[in-house]
Amino acid sequence: MKAIAEIFSQGEEVVSGQIVDSNAAWLSRHLNELGFTVKRHTAVGDRLEDLVSLIKEIAARADCCICTGGLGPTCDDLTAEAVSIATGQALQLDDVALRRIEAYFAQRQRPMPDINRKQAYFPEQALCIDNPAGTAPGFSMRIQRCWFVFLPGVPSEMQTMFVTVREQLLARFSLQPDRLATLRSIGIGESAIQQCLASLALPEGVQLGFRAAKNEVQTKLLFPAGFSQSALRDCVQQAAGLIGDYVFAIDGLEDGQGGDLLTVIDRGMTIKNHRLAVLETASGGALAAKCQGRGWLETALIAKNVTDASRQLAIEPDSDEDLAKTAECLASRLMRLQGVDFALIQLFQGSRDDYQQKDMPITLYNCLQTGAGVFHRQQTLSGAAQTKQNQAALLSLDLLRRTLQNKCL
Amino acid sequence: MKAIAEIFSQGEEVVSGQIVDSNAAWLSRHLNELGFTVKRHTAVGDRLEDLVSLIKEIAARADCCICTGGLGPTCDDLTAEAVSIATGQALQLDDVALRRIEAYFAQRQRPMPDINRKQAYFPEQALCIDNPAGTAPGFSMRIQRCWFVFLPGVPSEMQTMFVTVREQLLARFSLQPDRLATLRSIGIGESAIQQCLASLALPEGVQLGFRAAKNEVQTKLLFPAGFSQSALRDCVQQAAGLIGDYVFAIDGLEDGQGGDLLTVIDRGMTIKNHRLAVLETASGGALAAKCQGRGWLETALIAKNVTDASRQLAIEPDSDEDLAKTAECLASRLMRLQGVDFALIQLFQGSRDDYQQKDMPITLYNCLQTGAGVFHRQQTLSGAAQTKQNQAALLSLDLLRRTLQNKCL
Repeated sequence: MKAIAEIFSQGEEVVSGQIVDSNAAWLSRHLNELGFTVKRHTAVGDRLEDLVSLIKEIAARADCCICTGGLGPTCDDLTAEAVSIATGQALQLDDVALRRIEAYFAQRQRPMPDINRKQAYFPEQALCIDNPAGTAPGFSMRIQRCWFVFLPGVPSEMQTMFVTVREQLLARFSLQPDRLATLRSIGIGESAIQQCLASLALPEGVQLGFRAAKNEVQTKLLFPAGFSQSALRDCVQQAAGLIGDYVFAIDGLEDGQGGDLLTVIDRGMTIKNHRLAVLETASGGALAAKCQGRGWLETALIAKNVTDASRQLAIEPDSDEDLAKTAECLASRLMRLQGVDFALIQLFQGSRDDYQQKDMPITLYNCLQTGAGVFHRQQTLSGAAQTKQNQAALLSLDLLRRTLQNKCL
Repeated sequence: MKAIAEIFSQGEEVVSGQIVDSNAAWLSRHLNELGFTVKRHTAVGDRLEDLVSLIKEIAARADCCICTGGLGPTCDDLTAEAVSIATGQALQLDDVALRRIEAYFAQRQRPMPDINRKQAYFPEQALCIDNPAGTAPGFSMRIQRCWFVFLPGVPSEMQTMFVTVREQLLARFSLQPDRLATLRSIGIGESAIQQCLASLALPEGVQLGFRAAKNEVQTKLLFPAGFSQSALRDCVQQAAGLIGDYVFAIDGLEDGQGGDLLTVIDRGMTIKNHRLAVLETASGGALAAKCQGRGWLETALIAKNVTDASRQLAIEPDSDEDLAKTAECLASRLMRLQGVDFALIQLFQGSRDDYQQKDMPITLYNCLQTGAGVFHRQQTLSGAAQTKQNQAALLSLDLLRRTLQNKCL
């Protein structure tokens, strides 16, 4: 029998629909991976009596509950007070927590407002959880049958703190986590992946799932606890083979080859000490922004269109308007000008209006010149302008990834 | 006393975190606009006993509940059965609904699978809601004090059907919608805003709330139905005055001056027909990416640091390393080179390592040259590299916004 978990999200902005609660899904996935069965998500607003009654409900029916939100300094942040009422435990000042909050402000050379003191008060039996990413510490404590963990609602802070929470849960519960392998791909949709995998015979008890994230599509294989390591690897490799070169990384094989697209590219560029120059059009800065802080990016230029790109690199645009050929010219010019061994040119065909229209596709051309040759890809971008912009940046980077992995078609 | 509503989402994919439940937020916003108070969202999986007990809970405490999911043809679609058990009403075939489902398949020249017959069975007292966009009809019915509406989980189908549901709710409930005003600010935190507002005397019934979003902090004032329009405006203007120049826009005053930072800047740049050239360092492309598609952005350059920036614009960096002075030189040079009337230079002080370290602050310098003069701002950036990058882009754009609104300090 698996331990039963619930997710509890607090905040008017959630319950009134001003924001979509992505924390609940994130926490559920992580709790499932640890070996919990997540049975319920509940969101309520900032009314003290609603919080108190929900804490009591959950305390009576779940083994573990992760609660997000309501730990801020302002008058609508009521979590600690609600726990105090639900448990009858008074709020006490935690000196260590207070010193950490003071240090947070001191480090940023800002005075600590008085109201932030409130964030260092917890119910008597609570264990404080440090927040390295913000002012709001979290806390955990048992209430009736349930182990509650209270975290801030800001996703980046919550996710950073979950590293500690995960260790505490593993120590506190005897969990038999399923094993998850994630095939991370780019340039192919969920239903196309599902078709690729039609011939895959899944062993008994293995679950297949998909997740379309902003920057990639993930294919998830969940293996029951105790599944053989070599059979797991065979199954994952077979699935990866069926999906093909769209897969840029596999998480969960413990071979250090997982990670997001930038991590994979960073490994390839750093090992071989390559230097890259980029000219981007359709992504308008988003490509460079994704590479911010990477030492191998020597130069990034932004151009509005092919004419502007040609002007910036002082070449004549090709008269027959063959974008592939123009891109190739621009790449070798950029390589020479910047003295790098990799030059990546991103161009697109389509008007500024097409770009802005949700229903109008545009054609993206990428050209990468390296010492080993010139690699091209042509793809169609569709969706709202922001989607096109992000996809353009990703698909240009994906050509770089394919070249580094010797997967150029 | 407002009618109390709840949202109930059904499905293993929601409760296990495979998908983020965006239906709940969408429905909440629409119910709030209609004048309901949404007090709770709950998501459960596909277990019959969980569904039955949740329906009974909600039937006892809410006036209205919109439920999504569980209306499909497969074995894990259990909503109608759960309602039947919760109410003791047998499931009956609805001939009209069955003919509509048959017509849906006939229109697509596909045979109707037998399992789809199940979708035409409803509890005795249910009113069927037609689904023009798919096979799953919805239904509504009273259970104890609560009016339940059951809709499919596919967002496009749910949203299409909500047009009908909305009319039914307006006819069934006597609703008076609240009015919301949102003060949107940048460069100031939640707790500092709350301190600014300490002297604000809120009229009876007006609620104050805060939301820290990725790109701004929002201060929300919620006014009860019937609150006078001029008193609302006075209260909002008073709050804006207390927060000061950090406020870049106010939503909800119906004066057309709301919107996000880019919308506000776009209005100012477009009206006066300004042309901008930018050089960014700390944001590494993110500033340009935020302006993608805006006609007033003439050129965007990305430089790694002040030395690289000086090299790109062919000037000598100032020997005494006064960044403010260097920024000013770079701005006038960029203005001349590009023939624009606005030139924005973003520099930062701090090493590449400081930038990457979550706990190390760096100093950001922005300098904007216009025909009316030169405007400077110096601010501290902290947090993880991605946070610094985004904040740098926003604070540079905010200097532009302040200049356009004549709010330069």
